Amino acid sequence: MTERFTPTREDKFSFGLWTVGWQGRDPFGDATRPALDPAESVRRLSDLGAYGVTFHDDDVIPFGASDAERESHIKRFRQALDATGIVVEMATTNLFTHPVFKDGGFTANDRDVRRFALRKTMRNIDLAAELGAETYVAWGGREGAESGGAKDVRLALDRMKEAFDLLGDYVTEKGYDLKFAIEPKPNEPRGDILLPTVGHALAFIERLERPELFGVNPEVGHEQMAGLNFPHSIAQALWAGKLYHIDLNGQSGIKYDQDLRFGAGDVRAAFWLVDLLESAGWDGCRHFDFKPPRTEDFDGVWASAAGCMRNYLILKDHAAAFRADPEVQEALRASRLDQLALPTAQDGLAGLLADRGAYEEFDAEAAAQRGMAFERLDQLAMDHLLGAR
Amino acid sequence: MTERFTPTREDKFSFGLWTVGWQGRDPFGDATRPALDPAESVRRLSDLGAYGVTFHDDDVIPFGASDAERESHIKRFRQALDATGIVVEMATTNLFTHPVFKDGGFTANDRDVRRFALRKTMRNIDLAAELGAETYVAWGGREGAESGGAKDVRLALDRMKEAFDLLGDYVTEKGYDLKFAIEPKPNEPRGDILLPTVGHALAFIERLERPELFGVNPEVGHEQMAGLNFPHSIAQALWAGKLYHIDLNGQSGIKYDQDLRFGAGDVRAAFWLVDLLESAGWDGCRHFDFKPPRTEDFDGVWASAAGCMRNYLILKDHAAAFRADPEVQEALRASRLDQLALPTAQDGLAGLLADRGAYEEFDAEAAAQRGMAFERLDQLAMDHLLGAR
Amino acid sequence: MTERFTPTREDKFSFGLWTVGWQGRDPFGDATRPALDPAESVRRLSDLGAYGVTFHDDDVIPFGASDAERESHIKRFRQALDATGIVVEMATTNLFTHPVFKDGGFTANDRDVRRFALRKTMRNIDLAAELGAETYVAWGGREGAESGGAKDVRLALDRMKEAFDLLGDYVTEKGYDLKFAIEPKPNEPRGDILLPTVGHALAFIERLERPELFGVNPEVGHEQMAGLNFPHSIAQALWAGKLYHIDLNGQSGIKYDQDLRFGAGDVRAAFWLVDLLESAGWDGCRHFDFKPPRTEDFDGVWASAAGCMRNYLILKDHAAAFRADPEVQEALRASRLDQLALPTAQDGLAGLLADRGAYEEFDAEAAAQRGMAFERLDQLAMDHLLGAR
Amino acid sequence: MTERFTPTREDKFSFGLWTVGWQGRDPFGDATRPALDPAESVRRLSDLGAYGVTFHDDDVIPFGASDAERESHIKRFRQALDATGIVVEMATTNLFTHPVFKDGGFTANDRDVRRFALRKTMRNIDLAAELGAETYVAWGGREGAESGGAKDVRLALDRMKEAFDLLGDYVTEKGYDLKFAIEPKPNEPRGDILLPTVGHALAFIERLERPELFGVNPEVGHEQMAGLNFPHSIAQALWAGKLYHIDLNGQSGIKYDQDLRFGAGDVRAAFWLVDLLESAGWDGCRHFDFKPPRTEDFDGVWASAAGCMRNYLILKDHAAAFRADPEVQEALRASRLDQLALPTAQDGLAGLLADRGAYEEFDAEAAAQRGMAFERLDQLAMDHLLGAR
Repeated sequence: MTERFTPTREDKFSFGLWTVGWQGRDPFGDATRPALDPAESVRRLSDLGAYGVTFHDDDVIPFGASDAERESHIKRFRQALDATGIVVEMATTNLFTHPVFKDGGFTANDRDVRRFALRKTMRNIDLAAELGAETYVAWGGREGAESGGAKDVRLALDRMKEAFDLLGDYVTEKGYDLKFAIEPKPNEPRGDILLPTVGHALAFIERLERPELFGVNPEVGHEQMAGLNFPHSIAQALWAGKLYHIDLNGQSGIKYDQDLRFGAGDVRAAFWLVDLLESAGWDGCRHFDFKPPRTEDFDGVWASAAGCMRNYLILKDHAAAFRADPEVQEALRASRLDQLALPTAQDGLAGLLADRGAYEEFDAEAAAQRGMAFERLDQLAMDHLLGAR
Repeated sequence: MTERFTPTREDKFSFGLWTVGWQGRDPFGDATRPALDPAESVRRLSDLGAYGVTFHDDDVIPFGASDAERESHIKRFRQALDATGIVVEMATTNLFTHPVFKDGGFTANDRDVRRFALRKTMRNIDLAAELGAETYVAWGGREGAESGGAKDVRLALDRMKEAFDLLGDYVTEKGYDLKFAIEPKPNEPRGDILLPTVGHALAFIERLERPELFGVNPEVGHEQMAGLNFPHSIAQALWAGKLYHIDLNGQSGIKYDQDLRFGAGDVRAAFWLVDLLESAGWDGCRHFDFKPPRTEDFDGVWASAAGCMRNYLILKDHAAAFRADPEVQEALRASRLDQLALPTAQDGLAGLLADRGAYEEFDAEAAAQRGMAFERLDQLAMDHLLGAR
Repeated sequence: MTERFTPTREDKFSFGLWTVGWQGRDPFGDATRPALDPAESVRRLSDLGAYGVTFHDDDVIPFGASDAERESHIKRFRQALDATGIVVEMATTNLFTHPVFKDGGFTANDRDVRRFALRKTMRNIDLAAELGAETYVAWGGREGAESGGAKDVRLALDRMKEAFDLLGDYVTEKGYDLKFAIEPKPNEPRGDILLPTVGHALAFIERLERPELFGVNPEVGHEQMAGLNFPHSIAQALWAGKLYHIDLNGQSGIKYDQDLRFGAGDVRAAFWLVDLLESAGWDGCRHFDFKPPRTEDFDGVWASAAGCMRNYLILKDHAAAFRADPEVQEALRASRLDQLALPTAQDGLAGLLADRGAYEEFDAEAAAQRGMAFERLDQLAMDHLLGAR
Repeated sequence: MTERFTPTREDKFSFGLWTVGWQGRDPFGDATRPALDPAESVRRLSDLGAYGVTFHDDDVIPFGASDAERESHIKRFRQALDATGIVVEMATTNLFTHPVFKDGGFTANDRDVRRFALRKTMRNIDLAAELGAETYVAWGGREGAESGGAKDVRLALDRMKEAFDLLGDYVTEKGYDLKFAIEPKPNEPRGDILLPTVGHALAFIERLERPELFGVNPEVGHEQMAGLNFPHSIAQALWAGKLYHIDLNGQSGIKYDQDLRFGAGDVRAAFWLVDLLESAGWDGCRHFDFKPPRTEDFDGVWASAAGCMRNYLILKDHAAAFRADPEVQEALRASRLDQLALPTAQDGLAGLLADRGAYEEFDAEAAAQRGMAFERLDQLAMDHLLGAR
């Protein structure tokens, strides 16, 4: 039975180097695991069936490395990619670990920090393009504040727009085939982060000079840290044509950012997410951004990484069975999902206004008595989720 | 001293009829107060210093009233407006109380319910225009779901867009000088509501056929029910030119929708909100959407309404003193807020790339040691908030 | 396959009359279903395989009914019980719906309201005893406040203690074989409710005059509204010997009280809860306190009730398979759960202090490198939860 | 005006060495400040007006230091205490930073880790007693789990009880005049922590062998991370006679542990907390457990520490004015707080049962119409909080 849930390259699973490479340093504790060589991560992930990896500049090249060191790190990384066939599908910039970014990168109050952040980003975009990445993620984890006077948010959004417009110009001038995906998060490490949800990021993109280059990179746990329904936000991003990348992981409700392996935390939301991505035929990588708990040694790290992929495949299997089940199809009709697909007013405004059955003669009391049959439908979903049908 | 905080018409305070008229029915309890005649509410609010009122259709005209009853209710309401000079600045549709809307209005699975919801809205838009309202609010409180299969969110957004596009056509054809303000809310009464935050609503508007007619109506408590920083979301709405209306109230953290009087709940957020609205010179009404607790009799209702206005005025006074304080101005400079107002790259992309001081010769370690002085600045804000300077 | 998950009386499933009888009135909407005759509920629940029912006084006898009406209602209810063999296992008092309780029952500021609340409770205790209930639940949903000055919490706890001490005296004097179970909830309908969590209630009980008569009645969603791990709180209640009753339902994170059917919401927590109750051999009723969503007609109500029981049985089956799986047993040992069962210092304080291996010669660095293997263990649990092994 | 809010030794303000000494390492960023010599912290805090300091063993003596190094560190620390007159009022053990504690201390699955944790604690208790501390705090930040199978909570509570019983024996045998204060926290750094709230900790204490030696050390932000009303939990701890220590800081709602300076975050809760502590005449130290944001340099650190004390003094002043205000006293009576202080049944059970006015002749409808006047009372509190009266 396990065979069914073994990943292959076709599944397009990818992992951040910083995920399996996380050493377990948390706000109250020191590292529990030694550093992991990126080349080793590439090999191990390849063995587990992954398709790609992603990286922050500092994951591959230590902050402040000389040009020679830089080339040496890149070469070693590239050799592992070549040896395994693992693809670099996305890259991103670390604008949060070094203390210079303590007040942000693109929206730091200090102008010279903002300039440094932009240049650091551009330099890594060069590497991303060179390594064949198609997406460049921007997580502005330090763009925010703990207190109300510390940041003028309208000015900060001006600076954020300026930064992304410059980056749009940069990749255009360079001729890179690279799109940007902005990653929202409500808080942590800042008290409040700018562009806190998928919605705020989608709205922001519309004010950029080259909106077509920009989409979102939603992360399961980030949206859930605001108590929001993650599949709903993904649906809105898909509806807007803006789901450029995704970060899959797990989160147990509104609390600190847990980065559990995919499937852990809210497994019902994970089920509906997989159902949505697969139903929509979304063709991006299934990218995991998780942290193997610091209780684990390296065996646990790889077990955790394997679990991310396995859970995706189990849920994909269950979601497909749900959609194929004739009783489910009947239940969806009983809940009038077919009517939701119909235009409300194919007769146009004039037709609607002229239709006395729509208002003057509409029997609201009778209509109110129709049950929606959602509980039966949801129980069928539960049965499939639990493998009980 | 109290004199300073007495509201006048110039303060442009407005109240929903449903606020002071709330009878105190909650999920676990029956009404504790009798119904309040809208005309009486208008008179009492006028006496307290309010400028305007707002209403749902069903607040003034009971659902299902005959045309004759309707005219009688409207006449009575209009007389009170005329007698007091109270303005109707906004109106909205009740698409949530009647059981026919149990699965939503514009996105109900049942097509005939959607058509009824649109017609009900159009009819009240006529009244809103007739009474001189400038804004029409749309809160889709029932547009959502409790379970994943019950709603195809992409289709539901299609229906939501169709509805707003039809409404945009309607007011355009009628020649009404009316703009729409969409009101986001994350949940309650549905498990998850579509367009859950200010961000999601702002993003949605960009996909409408007449986006210029649509803005947002953020409510303090709604954004805080998702743990978000309300002033930050307002700043983004202002930045986008989309703050068309606002609902002021109070909320004590992530829980059920409390609708406390303005100032109650998170008073620090209220301070920064008032500071923002006043600094931005935003000229909309300061509209209160709160519920006097069901422990109160009518004396308590009016005390609660008066408290909303009083707290706004106190906070406005304190925020003005904060901004005028020379020590604060010096502290803002020490925190480099002035640098945030400067373009990051007034020298353009080429200039930035050519500037070795921005990257190659930038001393990140030295820059990292500069303190941001935010704690001192925030303590000055606290001193002003608490009236301790 | 479905056969396996069909409830029988031996499963001891019980339902509150107010659950299937909920009419769907919520803070923003009117009732969507007509009232349900308690006798009808008893019959339908019996048909579905339930073992028992529970009730508030007002569920069976309308508030303010005359003695004659009261007897008539009770008679009709009793006939349905007799006809079906359905047991009344618990009863409770409604101290929240009528406006007189707007500031609470046992801790209302008004002394006469407190006296009335106690007498109303005692009267229903008589009926509970007469109908054979073994547990009397006390949910103090209105014992709380929205603002800091409205309640002196220390005095309110004095009054709460006084009330429970009087009730303890009452059942003792009457010779009733009835224990009390206090039901905690953090908020809603009050801004903050006294005894907000299982912990606060357990602690409070220890200060009563007859603590042996008092335990807790935890509700899944209530503890989850505080973001707490429900199985952990149940484990502490069991550990303290104080799990006297339980309310099973579902909740999707920190928000308004949802009362979803059991299994909906956080199904992982539901799995661990069932695993705990079954592993502990807890012999109380599996009592459901849920609300069929107001989108449902009566078919949906019964589907929802059936789903509660079905989900419990599926999870019970999966939890049993998890515990019986040899690979799980090996994984538990690899995670050293067996060591947790051993005393830390079977050698006593003196032995521990004398053991140089415990401190002076303990190699903390070496010990720190042992992985806990929790990810592998949790993936096995996930496999069982999803029916994928 | 500022003079009024200048701290003195009589205010009994104390600080953890780890607060001002926090270097700013967070889950996403490296340290922004160098290490601070504990002796320097003592001197600076003394200059600011503090009364005492508190420490973890590892704050003063690095983990793994030799005996000679240990003595040298202690000597240096003691000299600073002697020179300034600063008192050590509390001490605690670091059972969370070193990787050996990754699965906990007293409840780690590994038995040898539990033994080491106990011995480490006992060793620091010796130092605490030697330095004159009166309270020993136990925060079990790593006692918990991220997944359901990883911890058998009932067994873990057995181990927790065993640990505290051994510690109770230890201080008794040694004759130390030291009480323990258990510090609850719901989560972070573990997914769920045992004894997550003040309530759970209070309940646990009742099962210990020497409960009189044990109380709680509630932290503002910890209880607020569960969305609970902090003053309510403190009131229950006081009511139970178990408030042995307190950790004052700030938190902006349900999210990661922020440790803002006292007064920041929910300033309304801070007002009611100060009102409660002062009204109750609680005589413990006002102990601050906060983290100066990592945006700050050392000037910001000291500004933040000074702000904690200043905010306490401002709120104390405002709370005293609130209580002394004749209009407030009248409003409290109007809200019948005086009735809450009266026994509900000074006539005993028999009297209550015999009183027809309490039930048979009680006019619930009339009583229900009495307004509680809470809004007026709360507005008076708001006026005082904002310094607007």
